[in-house]
Amino acid sequence: MDVNQQRLRSDLEANAEFGAVPAETGRGRTVLTGTEADRRAREFLCERLRDAGLTVRVDEVGNVVGRWCPASADPDAAPVASGSHLDSVPEGGIFDGPLGVYAALEAVRTLQDADVEPARPVEVVSFTEEEGQRFGGGLVGSGVAVGDMSVAEALAIEDDDGIPLGDALADIGYRGEGAVDASEWDAWLEIHVEQSERLVDAGVPAGVVSSIVGLSRCAVGIEGEANHAGSTSMADRADALAAASEFVLDVERATDERPDVPDTAVATVGKLSVSPNAPNVIPGSVDLTVDVRDVAYGSIESVIEAARESLVRLEAERPVTTTFDHAWDRRPVDMSARLRDALHAAGDAAVIETLELHSGAGHDTMHVAGVTDAALLFAPSVDGVSHNPREWTDWADCAAVTRVLAGTIADVAAE
Amino acid sequence: MDVNQQRLRSDLEANAEFGAVPAETGRGRTVLTGTEADRRAREFLCERLRDAGLTVRVDEVGNVVGRWCPASADPDAAPVASGSHLDSVPEGGIFDGPLGVYAALEAVRTLQDADVEPARPVEVVSFTEEEGQRFGGGLVGSGVAVGDMSVAEALAIEDDDGIPLGDALADIGYRGEGAVDASEWDAWLEIHVEQSERLVDAGVPAGVVSSIVGLSRCAVGIEGEANHAGSTSMADRADALAAASEFVLDVERATDERPDVPDTAVATVGKLSVSPNAPNVIPGSVDLTVDVRDVAYGSIESVIEAARESLVRLEAERPVTTTFDHAWDRRPVDMSARLRDALHAAGDAAVIETLELHSGAGHDTMHVAGVTDAALLFAPSVDGVSHNPREWTDWADCAAVTRVLAGTIADVAAE
Repeated sequence: MDVNQQRLRSDLEANAEFGAVPAETGRGRTVLTGTEADRRAREFLCERLRDAGLTVRVDEVGNVVGRWCPASADPDAAPVASGSHLDSVPEGGIFDGPLGVYAALEAVRTLQDADVEPARPVEVVSFTEEEGQRFGGGLVGSGVAVGDMSVAEALAIEDDDGIPLGDALADIGYRGEGAVDASEWDAWLEIHVEQSERLVDAGVPAGVVSSIVGLSRCAVGIEGEANHAGSTSMADRADALAAASEFVLDVERATDERPDVPDTAVATVGKLSVSPNAPNVIPGSVDLTVDVRDVAYGSIESVIEAARESLVRLEAERPVTTTFDHAWDRRPVDMSARLRDALHAAGDAAVIETLELHSGAGHDTMHVAGVTDAALLFAPSVDGVSHNPREWTDWADCAAVTRVLAGTIADVAAE
Repeated sequence: MDVNQQRLRSDLEANAEFGAVPAETGRGRTVLTGTEADRRAREFLCERLRDAGLTVRVDEVGNVVGRWCPASADPDAAPVASGSHLDSVPEGGIFDGPLGVYAALEAVRTLQDADVEPARPVEVVSFTEEEGQRFGGGLVGSGVAVGDMSVAEALAIEDDDGIPLGDALADIGYRGEGAVDASEWDAWLEIHVEQSERLVDAGVPAGVVSSIVGLSRCAVGIEGEANHAGSTSMADRADALAAASEFVLDVERATDERPDVPDTAVATVGKLSVSPNAPNVIPGSVDLTVDVRDVAYGSIESVIEAARESLVRLEAERPVTTTFDHAWDRRPVDMSARLRDALHAAGDAAVIETLELHSGAGHDTMHVAGVTDAALLFAPSVDGVSHNPREWTDWADCAAVTRVLAGTIADVAAE
């Protein structure tokens, strides 16, 4: 059973043309949901699905499903589904999302070429608005497919210009009917670029994800007093930015210093805004976000506790007041043991090395894992770069990881 | 010789109506150069100057001068000038600027009421665009008056909408002719609110400024690498904000820890911008400003040196690169010993206590001191608040400091 690397590459390169943007290094694209670039990407996918003999349907939130149900398959059996998304961040790369969609299609074609006769239907899926760059916070299509969000809620999400997702999809002809129901799938498998360097460092082409990290997002406010930078002595200041600086460093240290926090834990102050933010005014207030992730929820809680302790200390040591809003939480999600075993076995059978690792990012699989057995397979990211035109995965690695997927689908869909 | 506190208050309260903005506490106003509020403020000033028998002229950059040249005065003698500015920051207070202008006028009226016969003309001055909120970096009118900037350069300064200062002044009828030449003055005296709490703490109504601090402004860039907050381990990060946080604290500490830096020195990181500034992205770069002030240039240099050393250390300890641009420098400016002595003497004669202190802010006097003898007299600021509707100076203190000014003008203009 051989993957056709050239066919996969040709699909991905054709897809890379939609929304292509100039880049000094690498290949960039901007595919926001409901744009002309999105329409062309969807249209090309539907063509390629039909070329391979799949039946295409589009649900009301624009999720695209290509179904392969050969004579061997029981049309009423729960399908094995695989896919990812086609949308991108602004000036993103050409693999984040499309690799998972076209690898799923290539896996089906590989099974067809090898005359594999599955007992279950196989579905190739492209979810709408994974990145959340135009509508909502991301993972919209998979959110609807798992029932986290109703179709009506999703269609009503507005972009910055007040255009609802429903109108944007209708505009490009991809507001279909019904809703994909992920709970009807027997299994879900997603290939995605790793977006870090563990596979490259290990020289392994396929990463079997053990679990997707949990995530806590917090909003912190630090209130001091804005004052004249010239006429206020150092002793009389309530500098919100100096206090915030201590907090940023406390958060950074928390992952390192707490004995109960493993190396997998990460904590990030990614957004920080100073007010009034003028060279000659002592910062009066700072708003910032804290993003904490780990495979174990306990260590996330420990870092959050360290952040709270930092604020208590700052209020004691500096003339500032603080607010802490634990805005939302996402628990860690374990991948299906059955599917992880199948992925490793498929790698072994094809003599392609696999490695277990965790995922620091959520991906649509995080949603699907809530309603059926799900697994996530990583392809190596050169230099760990993603969301950037320099994002790159070697074509041979794309083929290798697709081969592991094809073997797994053959196995899982066999009965 | 008595100041008419009610007359002074009445002028300041009338002026406070122009550009008045609602405020929860205190009285706010927004008077940006070339606006209708500015036009009305200028018109009222010119009326009040003429009411007191002064001859009014307006120069090409909108500086307003009211000249009192009674029969006793030699019209060719170098005048004694006093004043400040009428423009404000957005939602600023009612004293910052106007007190200096109307105190100068009230001082002239006080001399008139007391039948003082000066040997020199006395001029009441209102400089254009001191705050630099609409056009340029501030101190525009005084910059032209001392020859730091040509009339043409000043008139060409554009606001954010591309409107030149010249057009904005013409629009409100205050683009006059010629240019005030501060070097022709025998002496310059400015009353301004202190904007800090030293006078209030000491219970003294009049502060004689010894020197205006020097100021160094630096622009710092810290470049790390933007990366996914979930999939990048703590060890693999180049977090520009964490590095910047260390820098902010190093700058704060520098004024405290260096033995050669006195308590008068202040250092502020007032503006800090994070890129890309998203909760789920490790900060890739940070730009920030450093503002260092002291009465001694040597201690400014010492703090700047500490800031540079911090960046060298950060480049050694973290995977970041940094840039440091010592953007501009303003040397400390000593006030005229002759005028300081005259201010103290006038205070003693009127039994009004005076106190020597330095100024952390520049004010128009900083410019004028470069071309003639100049002095700056502070009035107490309640709670040290300024640039805020809560800015306040008790009316009795306004009158007291005006009394010191009137006595000083009488003395300096006597021969």
